[in-house]
Amino acid sequence: MEAGLFTANNVWMMVCTAFVFIMHLGFSFLEIGLTRQKNTVNILFKNIFIICVGLLLYYMGGFNLMYPGFEEGEGFLKFAGLGIAAPEGGMTPGYADGGYTWWTDFLFQAMFAATAATIVSGAVAERIKLGPFMIFTILYVGLVYPIVGSWKWGGGWLDQLGFYDFAGSTLVHGVGGWAALIAIWLLGSRIGKFNEDGSPNAIPGHNLPLSAAGVLLLWLGWFGFNGGSVLSADPALTSLVLVTTCLAAAAGGVGAFLFSLVLYKNYDLTMFLNGILAGLVGITAGADVMSPNEAVIIGLIAGIIVVLGIALIDKLKLDDPVGAVAVHLICGIWGTLAVGIFGSLASGEQFVSQLTGVAAAGVFCCLTAFIILFILKKTTGIRVSKEEELEGLDAHEHGMSAYGDFRMNDH
Amino acid sequence: MEAGLFTANNVWMMVCTAFVFIMHLGFSFLEIGLTRQKNTVNILFKNIFIICVGLLLYYMGGFNLMYPGFEEGEGFLKFAGLGIAAPEGGMTPGYADGGYTWWTDFLFQAMFAATAATIVSGAVAERIKLGPFMIFTILYVGLVYPIVGSWKWGGGWLDQLGFYDFAGSTLVHGVGGWAALIAIWLLGSRIGKFNEDGSPNAIPGHNLPLSAAGVLLLWLGWFGFNGGSVLSADPALTSLVLVTTCLAAAAGGVGAFLFSLVLYKNYDLTMFLNGILAGLVGITAGADVMSPNEAVIIGLIAGIIVVLGIALIDKLKLDDPVGAVAVHLICGIWGTLAVGIFGSLASGEQFVSQLTGVAAAGVFCCLTAFIILFILKKTTGIRVSKEEELEGLDAHEHGMSAYGDFRMNDH
Amino acid sequence: MEAGLFTANNVWMMVCTAFVFIMHLGFSFLEIGLTRQKNTVNILFKNIFIICVGLLLYYMGGFNLMYPGFEEGEGFLKFAGLGIAAPEGGMTPGYADGGYTWWTDFLFQAMFAATAATIVSGAVAERIKLGPFMIFTILYVGLVYPIVGSWKWGGGWLDQLGFYDFAGSTLVHGVGGWAALIAIWLLGSRIGKFNEDGSPNAIPGHNLPLSAAGVLLLWLGWFGFNGGSVLSADPALTSLVLVTTCLAAAAGGVGAFLFSLVLYKNYDLTMFLNGILAGLVGITAGADVMSPNEAVIIGLIAGIIVVLGIALIDKLKLDDPVGAVAVHLICGIWGTLAVGIFGSLASGEQFVSQLTGVAAAGVFCCLTAFIILFILKKTTGIRVSKEEELEGLDAHEHGMSAYGDFRMNDH
Repeated sequence: MEAGLFTANNVWMMVCTAFVFIMHLGFSFLEIGLTRQKNTVNILFKNIFIICVGLLLYYMGGFNLMYPGFEEGEGFLKFAGLGIAAPEGGMTPGYADGGYTWWTDFLFQAMFAATAATIVSGAVAERIKLGPFMIFTILYVGLVYPIVGSWKWGGGWLDQLGFYDFAGSTLVHGVGGWAALIAIWLLGSRIGKFNEDGSPNAIPGHNLPLSAAGVLLLWLGWFGFNGGSVLSADPALTSLVLVTTCLAAAAGGVGAFLFSLVLYKNYDLTMFLNGILAGLVGITAGADVMSPNEAVIIGLIAGIIVVLGIALIDKLKLDDPVGAVAVHLICGIWGTLAVGIFGSLASGEQFVSQLTGVAAAGVFCCLTAFIILFILKKTTGIRVSKEEELEGLDAHEHGMSAYGDFRMNDH
Repeated sequence: MEAGLFTANNVWMMVCTAFVFIMHLGFSFLEIGLTRQKNTVNILFKNIFIICVGLLLYYMGGFNLMYPGFEEGEGFLKFAGLGIAAPEGGMTPGYADGGYTWWTDFLFQAMFAATAATIVSGAVAERIKLGPFMIFTILYVGLVYPIVGSWKWGGGWLDQLGFYDFAGSTLVHGVGGWAALIAIWLLGSRIGKFNEDGSPNAIPGHNLPLSAAGVLLLWLGWFGFNGGSVLSADPALTSLVLVTTCLAAAAGGVGAFLFSLVLYKNYDLTMFLNGILAGLVGITAGADVMSPNEAVIIGLIAGIIVVLGIALIDKLKLDDPVGAVAVHLICGIWGTLAVGIFGSLASGEQFVSQLTGVAAAGVFCCLTAFIILFILKKTTGIRVSKEEELEGLDAHEHGMSAYGDFRMNDH
Repeated sequence: MEAGLFTANNVWMMVCTAFVFIMHLGFSFLEIGLTRQKNTVNILFKNIFIICVGLLLYYMGGFNLMYPGFEEGEGFLKFAGLGIAAPEGGMTPGYADGGYTWWTDFLFQAMFAATAATIVSGAVAERIKLGPFMIFTILYVGLVYPIVGSWKWGGGWLDQLGFYDFAGSTLVHGVGGWAALIAIWLLGSRIGKFNEDGSPNAIPGHNLPLSAAGVLLLWLGWFGFNGGSVLSADPALTSLVLVTTCLAAAAGGVGAFLFSLVLYKNYDLTMFLNGILAGLVGITAGADVMSPNEAVIIGLIAGIIVVLGIALIDKLKLDDPVGAVAVHLICGIWGTLAVGIFGSLASGEQFVSQLTGVAAAGVFCCLTAFIILFILKKTTGIRVSKEEELEGLDAHEHGMSAYGDFRMNDH
């Protein structure tokens, strides 16, 4: 392979890594903005923790666990011995068809790993205890995520079966989403979220500019999330993937906006934003096998699904402050199944494979998330005290306020 | 062409596309910050709407309308038939001299398309009705922008004439700016902006950190806006363009800062910020044909012009909350004409061509913007009620507050 | 050299330039968030000033001063004559081994130049007079920074000596940090920072979401800061550098978080954030010569050092609102010395070279910063009046409020 092509490929993959990295700012902004100011420091702390610890864990073991084929190198699990190195040839065009170097491979995948826990972070906001959340994150990012990932991206049994998940509608968003679902079920809803008769109250976010910025940063991040999942800078494929990704996002936003306008007679900004995310999650499994028209359709449907999904979560008396389950889990399932319905892989057989993948990830993630969180619930507890929740986690867990100079409303 | 060069070119163009995309966050932050908190959700909604609908419209017809040469492909206008595809060879180095693929071309141009409407959005903030604004956006982005663009970038009559507009001082910023001018004239000024004697009152923005962030994000976006307008990653040309762009921005900021300091004896942050934007808009028409010294001069003059322009708009009793007309229209005209005065194309003949292009775009944009907005004014109305304006568009049009937890001043 | 490789190299360097540019938004957010709202406009103004004036100064003379080898070109110092141009061959692969063009070289280095002054900006926040700060910036960025830089990166005496500083732990962060130290010593502490008995009071920041965003944007910027310091897109080296950079950042954050948890029994978000920056500054001198394991160790230690450093600054009754001295100076020294201890260059001799470089930069920077600031102190004065400090610099120096619509606490 010519040096220019190898270098261009690797440049693209490094840029994509940077874009996926900035998604963590996107998630932080989104979650902060949609919750109350009294828990802002706590949310920031969790998200900063996740990106740092996620990277280190993936370095220490996750990458090896997820891609078991590379034991010829010295390997991350031998971390204790110090002095690990890339496998022979890992930094040459001979590795991965010259799409990137081994270290770029690691870093790109490491940025993905942290995402799963970040998804959970939003759903459990405003009431989870910090310590247990950190323990959960370590176990979930360090073990559960790479194990499920290995089934497909590591060449495991789901891959053998023909399951397809281009950039992680199931392997990232589903994995995060299932844990979010289990967590909000075990945690219970925030005080004041549901009335005695079961009807939900809106608990408005405190900083919608940050939420909107978060969604636009996540969209930007998806240029790398999906664009980098091509695993090279192949011009035809990467540019198609960016187009399907952006069109699905746009269609998802418009779908959610219009559907919620019809349903609720309201120009709902947060629905518009969630619709964009829904479209992005929905196209993620098949961004490289869809035509742009199909991407628009998948996005539109995702936009409608997310509005219904948020209503459904409310109906189930589950409390998900940022709509993470509807966006990441429900639209992740939709996106995964859509690969069996639309695009160049569509077939009945493919649909069954997709269904199998969704179900397998669901069972494994629910089980592991339940075991971890249930044990934590029975030992350390996972929920802050009523007093702490009412006064805010920032004051109690961190002893500081996010907006010291501002006067706040009491609630 | 070697695969490495084609790939590197396409990588650059995709990165530039991402940078132009993030300009929409820049515009959102800028507009929010310079207006009052009670209209924040409304501004966010409009900007999110524009990027989503802009992409979809450009996909459905705008790209074809603007670049009529590619009918050999199946074409976007055939959207209704489903199943469109890139023209034969569109994904190979044979397309566009190997500068990028057809899909990258589309996406890069689509990001530009949405910008024109975003410029209008700032000028009409805090008083325009949402519904009519959305209709205006659809018509202006879907039809007017691509038609004007086709005159030059689509190889039309202005191109034949020798008119030069590298990255859109006129074709993007002017097109947006003219519509902004017409719109604020038809809309009228915000309640309280002008006293009975015609003297203007400052209506201060509510979040200057976001405004400053917006300008820095727009500057970042201009790396892609101008850098990508080279339409390949040609090292000599792209790096020169980034240098002229950044120097013009810096000089514009310094020019506006110093000039407003002399004029108003005040270290005015918003003038500094507008000066940066003025420099960026000013260099956009000729970023590839100017020496860095000329870029500094063009930027400096743009920085002075924008200060005068903002005063002029006030004098005319027009109300432009974010200075969009001064920045995008007046400095867009300056930048377009500067191509006839400075740089490698400078000549009397060129100046006349530039003037013709400015005038042609002006007449067409003013006419179309007027027709659309006048019809809307006479039918649906384009301005919110007095009560709604005073209480804020967020409460009335969206039923939510951007900063639920914060206590606000009454005004 | 093949055109593809040259182009890919230059694309990477331009992208890195853009990432370093966005660090200025990161610094702005970080500094704003950690200080009080009444000085927000002032901080923004200073940061915007620095990036604009820094670019222009580096264009007018700094680049030539720092890299004296390129006099064959017409040179920036000949600015007055207008019409400068790149040296012959500066835009071809013959320049800089084809790693980038001459203009990319200039712009990448120009983005670095502004950083030194930005570091000072945070330390002196909330009490320095704007005018003298601007004069200081001009002299320090225009002269001191490029002179120190020339000693190593311009091939000067420190380079001859074997001193190693990959991306500027000393040449950028140290240079900024020393000036910050001198400045806060000459300025004195903010009113209310220290009690009569010398014990410090915490003066909490007013916008922690912006601070956290600032740190994540700085981290993103470091992809370019370190990744671009390879001065080409060499796949093996750039990807290793990104990995060492990110792992050091993560380890720094975790180190500071854990160490401050043990020390202060508190989940301190700002310590976590400063730890990330500490890790980034610490790895900067040797990002290309460390193994990932060594990067983790360097980062961890930097995270511990920064916690101790912040306590030390307090102990010395120096007032550094954002921890700039601890982060940039102390961890910059640590990172520079670490090159003599860890990695492929480690040796006793190297350690002595590193120590020499640290000391030389320290002496020169302290001396020049002292001379400039002392003269300013004795002439214009460098500190605002007591009244101005209490009411805030925004009202006095700028006549505007950063958050006009919000109600604020009095303090």
